[in-house]
Amino acid sequence: MQNKKHVLGVDIGATLVKVGLVEKGGKIVSKTSFLTKKFVSKKAFIKRLIEEIGQVIKNNRRAKGNLSGIGIGIPGTVDYSKGIVHNLTNIKGWKEVPLKKILRKFFKTPVFIDNDANAFACGQLKWGACRGAKNAICVTLGSGIGGGLIIEGGVYRGSNYSAGEIGHICIDINGPGCGCGSKGCMEAFVGNKYIINRVIKQIKEGRKTSLVDMVGGKLQKITPELLTKAAKNGDKFSIEIWKETGTYLGIGLSGLVNVLNPERIIIGGGISKAGKFIFTPLKKELVRRTMNQHLKALKVMRANFVDEAGITGAASLVIENK
Amino acid sequence: MQNKKHVLGVDIGATLVKVGLVEKGGKIVSKTSFLTKKFVSKKAFIKRLIEEIGQVIKNNRRAKGNLSGIGIGIPGTVDYSKGIVHNLTNIKGWKEVPLKKILRKFFKTPVFIDNDANAFACGQLKWGACRGAKNAICVTLGSGIGGGLIIEGGVYRGSNYSAGEIGHICIDINGPGCGCGSKGCMEAFVGNKYIINRVIKQIKEGRKTSLVDMVGGKLQKITPELLTKAAKNGDKFSIEIWKETGTYLGIGLSGLVNVLNPERIIIGGGISKAGKFIFTPLKKELVRRTMNQHLKALKVMRANFVDEAGITGAASLVIENK
Repeated sequence: MQNKKHVLGVDIGATLVKVGLVEKGGKIVSKTSFLTKKFVSKKAFIKRLIEEIGQVIKNNRRAKGNLSGIGIGIPGTVDYSKGIVHNLTNIKGWKEVPLKKILRKFFKTPVFIDNDANAFACGQLKWGACRGAKNAICVTLGSGIGGGLIIEGGVYRGSNYSAGEIGHICIDINGPGCGCGSKGCMEAFVGNKYIINRVIKQIKEGRKTSLVDMVGGKLQKITPELLTKAAKNGDKFSIEIWKETGTYLGIGLSGLVNVLNPERIIIGGGISKAGKFIFTPLKKELVRRTMNQHLKALKVMRANFVDEAGITGAASLVIENK
Repeated sequence: MQNKKHVLGVDIGATLVKVGLVEKGGKIVSKTSFLTKKFVSKKAFIKRLIEEIGQVIKNNRRAKGNLSGIGIGIPGTVDYSKGIVHNLTNIKGWKEVPLKKILRKFFKTPVFIDNDANAFACGQLKWGACRGAKNAICVTLGSGIGGGLIIEGGVYRGSNYSAGEIGHICIDINGPGCGCGSKGCMEAFVGNKYIINRVIKQIKEGRKTSLVDMVGGKLQKITPELLTKAAKNGDKFSIEIWKETGTYLGIGLSGLVNVLNPERIIIGGGISKAGKFIFTPLKKELVRRTMNQHLKALKVMRANFVDEAGITGAASLVIENK
């Protein structure tokens, strides 16, 4: 970071945009957020984004003249080198937007834009659980499965910056349809929506669970958080659902371990808060299915920064380029 | 290769050891081979290997004083940096053999040892279909599925030199057992043995095919070569088996393309001689299952050197280190 000690990280989520000022070591010293969905037009969204970034900088006297760049994580596909965001769900008219150019012109500081999973992996590598690793698979579990690959000590982005889509490996030829257009993808077993769909389906088929009372019979109100709460209270059905989910994840990841021979798997994202309920079956399946030599090199770890991993990840994109 | 213009490549196969003298551009100028299985002891095998290598060098006046090294491809796990071969099927007592040290001492020339799939990938990168590619997946289809990854312009070997086991990604949760101990691996659908087992099973279940007459009713004599021959003659069953095989391969590879975002897939090995019968369904499945952005970057190509790809690949390991 040379002499400039602060970096700005922007985590654009499907529902919330988080902006944070990050200092050495990944510590967030100031942050704010606003709702993504409120903005329907591209223009209004970019205007608000610039205002919020400006506000965070203004609010921190230490940041003035001391900002080494802005890093942005996007839930979509990005041309990393040009800083063009191909698509951004929820924002009307968003197509091939040169966000890097726009922000660089306004803030007169270097700007780096990548998809959120790569940003997450970069943050874990620079400041988090992935530090010191040569090769790793970084996973964010949420509405989708994000993947960021660390290869030979750096973020690996692939031939047109699209690498890391680990949710879209097929683990079941006869599996359910996936949002990507394929069938039986790991995401179609482990993504938020699919877990909840499985839960609701089984409850409707007559499975008994304390979840029903927890949501007053309104099944569409069931969330992964409630599923974890129920599991902690000993609800057998919820424990079983997490076990299934961890197993599916282990099936997919074991294949990737056989291919990539990483020394670490880093797991983050909302779903990872299920803790041992998902980690125990995941590790068991990895042991069961991974080849011996590969297993010897491997450690499975939880990500650092939890809910802030998006901001620190985005900020780390600036550090990556120093 | 500096001034020394020749490299020696040794392709240790499960049944045959091939030794070849290779010159600039990957051209084999002299070669020999011997049966792997004939040698039961480790000591006898190494003795014969040294004799055969020595003979090839002796027979080529041009090679004398002009050899820049020996490269060896092994069908097993290898510590690439130390040149220790962990295991070698068919050779009695083979365990943790420092083959690099032994050969280097004898021939007084640099020696490089890797598993055969990495050697294959290296050969395709230096001299074959993979030339100029930054990121690629190289596949050899035979009794097993070998995989060699090209990442950022070089062979990627992983954290303990075990990367590339692309045959051992699970494509079917409920799939058949695999030799690796897991279930539903791609290899359990696309490996030689599994294809033939599927053929025999379906014939026994009453499927009609000209294959039966081709082997005089001795089903165990059916080979992938005969399956291709029958397909070329219009045998519907054989065409269907290749179509299934190509589809399974496409299912597994589409996931890896989503993860690695390579610009090329290079397919070699005996099974690839089925040509369009396997390539057409493979490409179709890749298009059906791969994400758009990833598909844009991708080309599927047949490997160069065919039956010699093992020798040229092994030889290229020396070039890689120049």
